[in-house]
Amino acid sequence: MELITELQEIVGTNRVTAEPSELYCYSSDASQVRGTPDYVVRPKNTEQVSRILKLANKYGIAVTPRGAGTGLAGGAVALSGGVVLDLSGMNRILEVDIGNLQVAVEPGVVHAKLNEALNPHGFFFPPDPGSSAMCTLGGLIANRGSGMRSVKYGTIKNYVLDLEVVMAEGTVINTGSRTLKSSAGYDLNALMVGSEGTLGIITKALLKIHPLPKSRSLLLASFEGAEMAGKAVVRVLAGGIIPSACEILDRTTIEVLNAYDPNVALPDSDTIILFEVDGTKSGVQEEAEMVKSICKPFASSISIAADEQERNEIWTARRLVGAAISRLDPKMTRVYVGEDIGVPIKEIPNMLKRLRLISQKFDTQIMTYGHIGDGNLHTGMCIDVLDEKQWELLNRAADEIHRTAIMLGGTVSAEHGIGSARAEYMRLERGPALNVMAAIKHALDPKGILNPGKLGI
Amino acid sequence: MELITELQEIVGTNRVTAEPSELYCYSSDASQVRGTPDYVVRPKNTEQVSRILKLANKYGIAVTPRGAGTGLAGGAVALSGGVVLDLSGMNRILEVDIGNLQVAVEPGVVHAKLNEALNPHGFFFPPDPGSSAMCTLGGLIANRGSGMRSVKYGTIKNYVLDLEVVMAEGTVINTGSRTLKSSAGYDLNALMVGSEGTLGIITKALLKIHPLPKSRSLLLASFEGAEMAGKAVVRVLAGGIIPSACEILDRTTIEVLNAYDPNVALPDSDTIILFEVDGTKSGVQEEAEMVKSICKPFASSISIAADEQERNEIWTARRLVGAAISRLDPKMTRVYVGEDIGVPIKEIPNMLKRLRLISQKFDTQIMTYGHIGDGNLHTGMCIDVLDEKQWELLNRAADEIHRTAIMLGGTVSAEHGIGSARAEYMRLERGPALNVMAAIKHALDPKGILNPGKLGI
Repeated sequence: MELITELQEIVGTNRVTAEPSELYCYSSDASQVRGTPDYVVRPKNTEQVSRILKLANKYGIAVTPRGAGTGLAGGAVALSGGVVLDLSGMNRILEVDIGNLQVAVEPGVVHAKLNEALNPHGFFFPPDPGSSAMCTLGGLIANRGSGMRSVKYGTIKNYVLDLEVVMAEGTVINTGSRTLKSSAGYDLNALMVGSEGTLGIITKALLKIHPLPKSRSLLLASFEGAEMAGKAVVRVLAGGIIPSACEILDRTTIEVLNAYDPNVALPDSDTIILFEVDGTKSGVQEEAEMVKSICKPFASSISIAADEQERNEIWTARRLVGAAISRLDPKMTRVYVGEDIGVPIKEIPNMLKRLRLISQKFDTQIMTYGHIGDGNLHTGMCIDVLDEKQWELLNRAADEIHRTAIMLGGTVSAEHGIGSARAEYMRLERGPALNVMAAIKHALDPKGILNPGKLGI
Repeated sequence: MELITELQEIVGTNRVTAEPSELYCYSSDASQVRGTPDYVVRPKNTEQVSRILKLANKYGIAVTPRGAGTGLAGGAVALSGGVVLDLSGMNRILEVDIGNLQVAVEPGVVHAKLNEALNPHGFFFPPDPGSSAMCTLGGLIANRGSGMRSVKYGTIKNYVLDLEVVMAEGTVINTGSRTLKSSAGYDLNALMVGSEGTLGIITKALLKIHPLPKSRSLLLASFEGAEMAGKAVVRVLAGGIIPSACEILDRTTIEVLNAYDPNVALPDSDTIILFEVDGTKSGVQEEAEMVKSICKPFASSISIAADEQERNEIWTARRLVGAAISRLDPKMTRVYVGEDIGVPIKEIPNMLKRLRLISQKFDTQIMTYGHIGDGNLHTGMCIDVLDEKQWELLNRAADEIHRTAIMLGGTVSAEHGIGSARAEYMRLERGPALNVMAAIKHALDPKGILNPGKLGI
C-alpha cells in the first residue's frame, strides 16, 4: 500500500495532502529556513498521532511537528522531506481548573486564546511571547518560549505540569501529573520542553496558571545611552525589585514605534527602559516609587503611564516592534537572524556596546529591543533582500553577534529555539553537553525520525 | 593494583576508607534503608570525582553519591556495595554574584549556610527544606527538594542555572549557563535535578537567587476540621493570593509543638493553617487582610503574628515538627515511611479524610503537617519499633497512603525523592514514562554504575 493511502486511512482522505501548492505553504516558518515535506498530515487526536508515528517509525520517514509556523529558527521546517504533522487543528481548551491552578489544552491552542479564557476567572498564563496572537502553545512549549514577563514569572518550563507525548515508536506517555510538585524520577516535563519535537510529539498539556495581579504600573525611563540604561537595570534588580517586565527600546526602535503609531508618542531619546511592576495596589505604588528613585541618577527622564489605557497602548506598540521595523524604509526588509541572544545581566551594557561596534563593522543597521531584565536582547536587522552583498554582511554580523554572546557566557537563543538556523553554534555554546543530548536523542528515537536536522545533534 | 590503592592515588590515603566501623556510619540515611559500601571516598574536587568515575566505570563498580545523609528514601545508601562518594567536604561557596542574581556553590554547602551568606546582600535562596540546618545543596538538587516556600517560589528546579556534572564515564559537562534563560537544546539542568545521582555526579552548581522581601506577615487560622481548612486554602489560592508559605498542622502536631516549646502557645484547635505573605510593606498588609477575609467564613479564629520575633518562633517550631514528634510518647519512634505524598490541591480535603480512615483501619496514629499550599502533605507515624506487629501495620498503612495519593492523581514523593524506599510505586505512578527514564539512564550510564537500585529503573 502506498504511504499516502496508509496516512489517509489513519486521518481521513481530506487531512492528508501531497499537492505541491499546499506543500509549498508548509515549506517555511518565520525564519529563512526552507524545506518541503512530501506530505502534510493534519491529525485530530492523540491516537492518530500515535498511528502516524508507528507508520513513520516502521518506514524510517521523517516527521516534523508544526503549530502556527511562527518559529524563528526553522524548527517546524522539514529538512529531510517526509511528513509535516500540522497540529494546529488540535486546538481545544479541554479544561479550566481554577481550584487546581491549572488548565488542560491541546497543542494547537493559540496563546492569546488561553488568556482570553482565563481572564474572566481572574487568572492568566504568565509566559507572554510577542507572537501571542498567532503562536500555539505546543510551539511555545517545544521551543521553551517565554516573553517579556519571564523576568518575574519565569519561562514556560515553570508552568508545565504534565504533557501527553507520543514517543517515536508510537507509545503515549505522560511526563508529569496534576500535582504542583513531584520528586518522582526524572523531570520528563522539562526534558520535552525545548526539545523542538525531536524527542516526541506533544498532544496535550497541563499548564499551571497564576492569579492576575490586582494592579500594574508601567514606568518609562529615558537614558542618554544604552550602557547607562543597562546599568540602571542591573541596579534595580540588585536593589531587590523584580519587575513583571523590563524591556529595552533603542533609538531606532523608538523612532519606528512613533512612526508606526503617533498616539504612542514615546519620548525622543537614545534608549528607553519600560519597567512594569505588578502586585497589590499599594505594593505596586511602593515598588514603582522604588524603581523611580533607583533610576533617577541614571535617567534623563522618568514617567509613569497615567492609566490602563496608556499602559495598553505602549504594550501593544511594543508587541508590534518586530513587524513595525519594516516601516523604517520601504526598500528594507527585517530578516530574522541572530535575533535572540541572551547574556548574563551584568554583561548587558557590554553586549550593547559590542552590538554598536558590530553594526559599524558590517555596515548593517542593528536595532535592539527585548527583555533586558533577563538578559535577552532581540537584535533587528534590515536589509534590501535583493542585494547579495547586504545578505553577506548581514550573515557575518549575525555570526559575530552569536559568537560574542557565547563569549560573554550567554546563549544564541534565549527564547526562540535553535532549529536549524542556530544549530551550528550548539557545539561552541554547549560543549560536551551536546554529546549527552545526542545520546538521549538516540536512546528515545533510534531511527532518527523526529524532526531530523535540528538542534545540532 | 588493588582498587583501594587506586582510589588512594586519586584522593590521598586519608580520604579513602574500608574500615567496617567507618563504613557502618555510611550504611544508612534518615530512612529505613540500609546498605554498606565497600569503600567511602571523600573527593576534594571535580578532577578527583572524574578520575574515580573513570575507574569505577572501567571495573563496573557502583558509585553512590552522598551529601549530609539527611535523605528520607535511601537515595544516598549503597545497595550494591562499591563506593560511597562523600561530597560533604566539597563545601565552598565559590561566588556570590548579586549583579547576575546568582551564586556558585560546591555540592557539599549546607543549605542554611548559603542563606547566611546571602542575607547581608538583601538576597535569599528561596527553596526552604525543613532540614535546612543540615542538608547539602547537592542533595537538595539531586532530590528536587523544595520546602515550605515552594507554593510561591517554586522548587529547586526553578533555581538551577547550571550544573557541573561528572558523567558515568568521567566526562565533565556543564548542563546550563550563566544566563537566566536559554532555549539552546535539551534542559539538562532539569534532567539532573531530581535524578538522585543516577545520571551523573554534581560537582558545582550555579543557582539563581532572589531579593529578600521587604516585609512578611504570618496569619494563623484555626479550623474545626481538616476538610474545612483544606477548603479555605483552595479558596485563598483561587481567590488570587499566592502565599509565600501555606502550612497545615493537625491536632496532634499542634499538641506536639505546644509540648515541645510552651512559648509557641498555638491555639488549642483541630487544625491550624499558617499563611505567610511577603512583598512590600503595604502590599503585605493588603494581602494579609485579604487572606483574613477569605478565611473568615471557614475559620474558628484567625490571628496575625505580632512581630518578627513571634513569626520566627512559630517557624522555628514548625521546622522541628519532624523531630518533636518523638516527644509524643517516649516509647514511640517516628518512622519515616509514606511521609511525602502530594495531591492536586482540590483533593487535599479528600486526602485528609482518607488519611483519618487509614489511621483507624491500621490502628496507627497519623499526624499530618506540611506544605498544603502545593498539595504536599507530610504524614508522621510513630510506632514502638520493637513491636513487629506495629511495623507490619505501619507498612500496610504507608502502602495504602501511597496508593491513595496516586489514585487521586498525586505522587508518592512531592519533595523527598524516590530512592529505594518508594521505588516500587514508580511503575504505578509514572506508567510507561518509567521506560523512557530507563532508556535515558541506560544511554547515559550503560554499565549502570551510578547509584544502582534507585528510582525503580
